[in-house]
Amino acid sequence: MTVQAPLDPRQKAALSPSEARGYFRSETWQGSTRGFAFGRLQCGVVMLPQSEAADFLAFCTKNNAALPLLDMTPAGVPVTKAYAPDADLRTDVPLYRVFRDGELVDEVPNIKNYWRDDMVSFVLGCSMTFDSALLANGIPNRQLTETGKPSMYVTNIECEPTERFSGPLVVSMRPMLPAQAIRAIQVTSRFPKTHGAPNHFGDPAAIGIADIMKPDIGAPVRILDGEVPVFWPCIGTIWSVVARSKPPFFISHAPGCMFIADLSDEEMSVL
Amino acid sequence: MTVQAPLDPRQKAALSPSEARGYFRSETWQGSTRGFAFGRLQCGVVMLPQSEAADFLAFCTKNNAALPLLDMTPAGVPVTKAYAPDADLRTDVPLYRVFRDGELVDEVPNIKNYWRDDMVSFVLGCSMTFDSALLANGIPNRQLTETGKPSMYVTNIECEPTERFSGPLVVSMRPMLPAQAIRAIQVTSRFPKTHGAPNHFGDPAAIGIADIMKPDIGAPVRILDGEVPVFWPCIGTIWSVVARSKPPFFISHAPGCMFIADLSDEEMSVL
Repeated sequence: MTVQAPLDPRQKAALSPSEARGYFRSETWQGSTRGFAFGRLQCGVVMLPQSEAADFLAFCTKNNAALPLLDMTPAGVPVTKAYAPDADLRTDVPLYRVFRDGELVDEVPNIKNYWRDDMVSFVLGCSMTFDSALLANGIPNRQLTETGKPSMYVTNIECEPTERFSGPLVVSMRPMLPAQAIRAIQVTSRFPKTHGAPNHFGDPAAIGIADIMKPDIGAPVRILDGEVPVFWPCIGTIWSVVARSKPPFFISHAPGCMFIADLSDEEMSVL
Repeated sequence: MTVQAPLDPRQKAALSPSEARGYFRSETWQGSTRGFAFGRLQCGVVMLPQSEAADFLAFCTKNNAALPLLDMTPAGVPVTKAYAPDADLRTDVPLYRVFRDGELVDEVPNIKNYWRDDMVSFVLGCSMTFDSALLANGIPNRQLTETGKPSMYVTNIECEPTERFSGPLVVSMRPMLPAQAIRAIQVTSRFPKTHGAPNHFGDPAAIGIADIMKPDIGAPVRILDGEVPVFWPCIGTIWSVVARSKPPFFISHAPGCMFIADLSDEEMSVL
């Protein structure tokens, strides 16, 4: 369920990370965090029992472009000291998804009722982090400016599996002119902790995408004359992996509903 | 006239810059310098009367991606102190082109008979400089591995004009898979003094190229299934500019026949 909040885009953008998290904690807004606290790090959140944490961490490490690890908490401690020490990872995301044996069983604005003392939380990078850098470079980003939703596609590229986890890579897509794509590759290469450079551009079929106007997750965006689709490894990979690997208990943010950290986007740049 | 030299590719690659220049100075080889003294900086050379030097320098500066200035000599001094202090720019290039009023009037292995004390020499960056970086990254470069010749195309992109000089941008092209193109963009962005990142990929018609298999200068290369053409601003631009601007007297290297400097390719990298 999406609740329309009484904030215009400029007000959303101007919130501090703490104010944005408080707004989500109040459960007034259960939609996309795109454009909130603009220029601050947007993160994915995954929680699972400690018994599976090491294997999931290995999966993130092997598939670092899609699932770049920012932080892993101790079991039972729903706080990321490095990225937002005052925030509670159980309440400060607008909307969570709860999975049992790979099936979506609930979508909730907080996961207090699901929390267990053996839960480990993973904070993962998200491409919304380079929204601000793309905007500053005049590169189209219609997920930000038009739809407000992500456009994610399941590919035919297999992730590197671990003992417990496997699944196909999911990518996000932004259409742009070739010269803009070249600039976008330069810009996003500076952000390896939030997916970094694209992994493909051009022909969607080459990576197993049948219809570019039908994303598997989120909403489509317009592709203008002369533009090519540009694809980035995406945190949406967690859902293809959950569907395939069927972990007993797995909690994540809902698509586009991220955890906003205290750090700025630019603090994530390697150059 | 091209003289076949008794050197195999490995011997060519192993020459020092000084040895390669001596080989060209002996006029045994009047062909492409591709693969000679591999990993050393390959440069374009332009010479023209001092009366036009300032305007040509302004043209290079305004069109820096195509014509990146490495050095400009004083009038009458055919030596680039910074890049090869022991070399003579009048003899150490395998083949030169001499133009009068924009027309090619001679192609010669040295320009001693054309030299004048008011001549200023420009040393310009060339994309052969990142051949070694592309090779090290496993990116196809069939100009190096198959044809030995450049593939250059006149585009419909106008250079920024100066008072005396104008003309369309000329680009070089290498075909590769999209994922390789993404890596090539990262790699070549490190070399702004030798053209840097591509300016276009994909549809040749978008930049005014009618037939990708018919380059305006040099030879075509094979394009394999799934590959896209990737285009870089090219020093070949000097010939489209000479044809348009018709300077009274203008000397350059011949296509693919470069001046090899003492510096290594990697010394040109900004990162």
